[in-house]
Amino acid sequence: MATHVETPGPTGVTDDDARRPAEPADAARFDVAAMTDVLDGRWAEVRRHVREQLPLEAGLLEAADDLPRAEYRDRVRDVLVELAGTGQTGLGFPTDHGGGGDVGASIAAFETLGMGDLSLMVKAGVQFGLFGGAVLQLGTRAHHEAYLRDIVAGRLLGCFAMTETGHGSNVQQIGTTATYDPATDELVVHTPEPSATKDYIGNAAAHGTMAAVFAQLVVDGEEHGVHAVLVPIRVDGHPAPGVTITDDGPKLGLNGVDNGRLAFDHVRVPRANLLDRFAQITEDGRYTSALANPNRRFFTMLGTLVQGRVSVGGAGLSAAKVALTVAVRYGDRRRQFSTGGKDGDAEQVLLDYGMHQRRLLPRLARTYALTCAQGVLVERLHEVASVRAEAGEVDDHAQRELESRAAGTKALATWLATDVIQECREACGGAGYLAENRFAALKADTDVFTTFEGDNHVLLQLVAKGLLTDYASSFEDLDQLGLVRMVAGMAVETVVEKTGAHALLERVRDLLPGGDDWSSEARIGDPEYHLAMYRFREEHTVSSVARRLKRGIDRGEKAGDVFSRVQAHVIAAARAHMERLVLEAFVDTVRAQPRGPVRDALALLCDLHALSGIEADRAWFLEHGRLTVARSKAVTREVDALCARVRPLAVDLVDAFAVPEEMLRARALLG
Amino acid sequence: MATHVETPGPTGVTDDDARRPAEPADAARFDVAAMTDVLDGRWAEVRRHVREQLPLEAGLLEAADDLPRAEYRDRVRDVLVELAGTGQTGLGFPTDHGGGGDVGASIAAFETLGMGDLSLMVKAGVQFGLFGGAVLQLGTRAHHEAYLRDIVAGRLLGCFAMTETGHGSNVQQIGTTATYDPATDELVVHTPEPSATKDYIGNAAAHGTMAAVFAQLVVDGEEHGVHAVLVPIRVDGHPAPGVTITDDGPKLGLNGVDNGRLAFDHVRVPRANLLDRFAQITEDGRYTSALANPNRRFFTMLGTLVQGRVSVGGAGLSAAKVALTVAVRYGDRRRQFSTGGKDGDAEQVLLDYGMHQRRLLPRLARTYALTCAQGVLVERLHEVASVRAEAGEVDDHAQRELESRAAGTKALATWLATDVIQECREACGGAGYLAENRFAALKADTDVFTTFEGDNHVLLQLVAKGLLTDYASSFEDLDQLGLVRMVAGMAVETVVEKTGAHALLERVRDLLPGGDDWSSEARIGDPEYHLAMYRFREEHTVSSVARRLKRGIDRGEKAGDVFSRVQAHVIAAARAHMERLVLEAFVDTVRAQPRGPVRDALALLCDLHALSGIEADRAWFLEHGRLTVARSKAVTREVDALCARVRPLAVDLVDAFAVPEEMLRARALLG
Repeated sequence: MATHVETPGPTGVTDDDARRPAEPADAARFDVAAMTDVLDGRWAEVRRHVREQLPLEAGLLEAADDLPRAEYRDRVRDVLVELAGTGQTGLGFPTDHGGGGDVGASIAAFETLGMGDLSLMVKAGVQFGLFGGAVLQLGTRAHHEAYLRDIVAGRLLGCFAMTETGHGSNVQQIGTTATYDPATDELVVHTPEPSATKDYIGNAAAHGTMAAVFAQLVVDGEEHGVHAVLVPIRVDGHPAPGVTITDDGPKLGLNGVDNGRLAFDHVRVPRANLLDRFAQITEDGRYTSALANPNRRFFTMLGTLVQGRVSVGGAGLSAAKVALTVAVRYGDRRRQFSTGGKDGDAEQVLLDYGMHQRRLLPRLARTYALTCAQGVLVERLHEVASVRAEAGEVDDHAQRELESRAAGTKALATWLATDVIQECREACGGAGYLAENRFAALKADTDVFTTFEGDNHVLLQLVAKGLLTDYASSFEDLDQLGLVRMVAGMAVETVVEKTGAHALLERVRDLLPGGDDWSSEARIGDPEYHLAMYRFREEHTVSSVARRLKRGIDRGEKAGDVFSRVQAHVIAAARAHMERLVLEAFVDTVRAQPRGPVRDALALLCDLHALSGIEADRAWFLEHGRLTVARSKAVTREVDALCARVRPLAVDLVDAFAVPEEMLRARALLG
Repeated sequence: MATHVETPGPTGVTDDDARRPAEPADAARFDVAAMTDVLDGRWAEVRRHVREQLPLEAGLLEAADDLPRAEYRDRVRDVLVELAGTGQTGLGFPTDHGGGGDVGASIAAFETLGMGDLSLMVKAGVQFGLFGGAVLQLGTRAHHEAYLRDIVAGRLLGCFAMTETGHGSNVQQIGTTATYDPATDELVVHTPEPSATKDYIGNAAAHGTMAAVFAQLVVDGEEHGVHAVLVPIRVDGHPAPGVTITDDGPKLGLNGVDNGRLAFDHVRVPRANLLDRFAQITEDGRYTSALANPNRRFFTMLGTLVQGRVSVGGAGLSAAKVALTVAVRYGDRRRQFSTGGKDGDAEQVLLDYGMHQRRLLPRLARTYALTCAQGVLVERLHEVASVRAEAGEVDDHAQRELESRAAGTKALATWLATDVIQECREACGGAGYLAENRFAALKADTDVFTTFEGDNHVLLQLVAKGLLTDYASSFEDLDQLGLVRMVAGMAVETVVEKTGAHALLERVRDLLPGGDDWSSEARIGDPEYHLAMYRFREEHTVSSVARRLKRGIDRGEKAGDVFSRVQAHVIAAARAHMERLVLEAFVDTVRAQPRGPVRDALALLCDLHALSGIEADRAWFLEHGRLTVARSKAVTREVDALCARVRPLAVDLVDAFAVPEEMLRARALLG
């Protein structure tokens, strides 16, 4: 995820002669259950319920190691169907179709499944989030009445057939076609070339009987862009006529999910199988849509499926929490190397070593931070979904802001999961390599999270587009070239004005001492100072990338070349934006707590997160005049000191994740 | 591996208004075969031979996915025995025992196995490097004559039983005992407590019939420290009496290796089974050793086993080369996203995107750099081994320098492998997640490399000890506390003087313009400037850590507390030292080439490696007055420009790794 190769230089090391020993740990112990409530947030009850249910599926964790792939897949399918029976997987569907009518609750439940077997979690996501979501969001009453009840109950297992071998994240250019044949009033679904084969499709290789197939819709010889069509893919367990199904075979992880490839040879389905909420084919064979602009139509359809991205980020965080729980508890009990040597001191526990604290505690803090940001995201999603359910229509700007926040949070959360699980594995040494200690599955299963539901780099470009164009109504029109052209046509000031960061930065002067020198005058531990630094970075990165895009065009370069060269900067702007949103979510969470040990512990973690973020990027702040050398070193010292102060709370802080003991396995490590 | 949480800030992004488009790629194409020869170095012939043999075992790559664990293990065992028949696994053993008598060649062969199935490579390492190495290095004529021929031929499969459940990298404190019983003239090998169980032992769970067991030797009631004893663990395929064998079960990867646990209940073996090269038990039951100091004895024994560490680092690089070959070729052919949009330009190949170049090319350059450093290491090992073979004795200082270089190179090379394989997997998207595309096995199998043969952080502490004490003869006595005390007792100047970096830095003035301002006066592309920056960082980090250790003691703190607080800094000093050695190895390799396209391409990569290393750590250089803000931004611009210039050579540069096509699989990705 680094834009530069990971080079092990002495980053985060100070040699300041004024250095003093880290302050004694002074933070008070807190009530773990109360901290769990803070982390659980609005849908705490659902999360508690799912955590109580999880141990019932603990057997899957062993099954993943011991069963042949085919049997493991069937076990996961069986548990999925049981799960459907409990109702917890249908929370997001309308009550009048057997659902719970509570989108936020459904995300909360899904995220929590991320503490258990991840094949089960992903298969549930495919069935209820993607396939069920497509029927619910893109279909209309007839589809809902025909299928939702069976989908929610797990009686009808289906696929979300969007990705193609030749087109991963670039959905608008998929090759599959759905051509309307007026003679028979049917849609003919076809795979024109191998690269148009649907690929990596969950539920395809073994269990799915129907698929929501995304294809270029052709009516009366005219292309209308990507639409979804319901296609039966299996009859009595065998591929339907004209449908070729192949198995994606073994994968690094998630081998309990039957990913496969789907190819269609002029497969005919009734016109009624078109999921026609946003576009219809009339009885007399005309194409109609309330959304005239094809791009707008495309992004509106996709927008209704944002739920998937929200879920993956949250599930990644749950997996990271399992890893941190094992690694921190292990570091608190595992003794290694006598620092007393001949004096015969006892060996010291790993977590008392400065290096070990550096490896685990900032990651613990960042996991708390992203949990807060994820909480805000789920609230937003719930609001938008509720508005849509009632009014049917959603404000464009709010919808796009939600999509942007979902894309960015997914990228940061899944990259964090990969990073945290890796560091925790190494921090547990060889034991971390054994399947029985959980890391094997966590690493292997979550690795693809940075890719599916949208490649993280592509998602951050999406964030940047929204940021640079203030979610312009022409947003849907913007491919990369369009972005460059549009930004080039705007005054940089306009771009910056439009990003929230500017206005926020204006307020700094009122909140911090020192006027323009706020960055040197403010207390290093002041959250307003941390926020100001993050906002300054965002505003500066966004405006400078806008300037570079303009300059390139003014210089008469090809827009494509300009984009390619500025791409890393575009992505950096998106990251700066997302980091600011994450920190704000954490700070707001702290401030919402009543005074007391829980709030104090959260405040400590929030400082550690904010300052280690500044430390990691201190080169940029030094380059842009917001850190003096002295203060830069002071930041590193402060991070060391904060690690030492968090250390005595570390075990309680991971216990607050409330990962069921059965999900930890790791008997040998923690027993 | 980062000392701070990986925070995605806009590192490596410049917004300098003077920015110009990257220079057009001007580097000439080169002869790929000639580049391969450079990379292959002194043992090119052996490497070529093993690469030609590898395709014969290509079937193992599929077997790893498809066979049940037990069958896959047996397949690996069978191939191992075949391999032994070819002689390529016995190159490191004396000719008069069926070996090839060429240590360097044996490492070269082993490293190359890292391009194939890694379970086979690791099992070969266990059998020939660890078990065979212990018998060869720690045993004497009788042991050699009794076992080496069968070991080399693969007729006698054995274990290297050092690690215990309770003691990973801290071998000196293992709990297993070997007590001499004069009544029967036997050694009684015993596991006094569960934490003393031998763990993660390759060849233990299924195939090994004998083990070199490391235990605390007790003679006549007196403990003499860790010694190795040969213990039969299986008879006719069943555990030997008193030996309890349990399977470590499934692992994240390397499931073709039968790792297991060994516990001993007063198991009796003849006195002759003591591997007695460095210490003996006389016929009348007295303990004798030419090495009086127990610590010195311990480290001398371990020192003879340095080969294992050298091999693992090299194997990690081979795995990284497989990943880079797939990802770079894929990036050169995979088209994604039209940057031409409505203009209908064709989609651009991934590797033409600035971000994609940033993700892959500096890692490619660093892989070349580590390959050069590994080459130097193997040469040194070969020399030391040759001297030992002839003279029997080796100069302490040379031996310890070798051990330090081996430890540090292993840490950097295996961390690089983890990082490169991860980035390459993500750069290939969902396809990278399928087993058929190789990344699954590469990721899963290499993940433990950062841990086995010594945890990377522990190894870097070892490097720091040598560095801070100039491989003092009292080196063996230094536990962490001893290190602190010793350094505290020295003048900082002495510490710095002793590190090579100081003298090297002195020469900077002669080689670079500007006197003390060399860092701002020198050309940004001058290798002497790059070397000076790396040497400055090393000298400064080493001296400052020495100062901090002294200050802590002077302040009357407990040595253990001082070490714990300064630990990250100690490790950073070791990294700075190793980074300097790696860059020097790369620069020397470039300079050794005749003028021409091969040398030009290497020089380009060397600049990219050196400057992206400075960029990644530019915060430190800014903090320590060796980078101005303007120059820091210039470094980032230069790295961008170098990526653009390397890009046209990228495919040839990975082809020069000469990974056999059969080892790439990835038919779908590259087909």
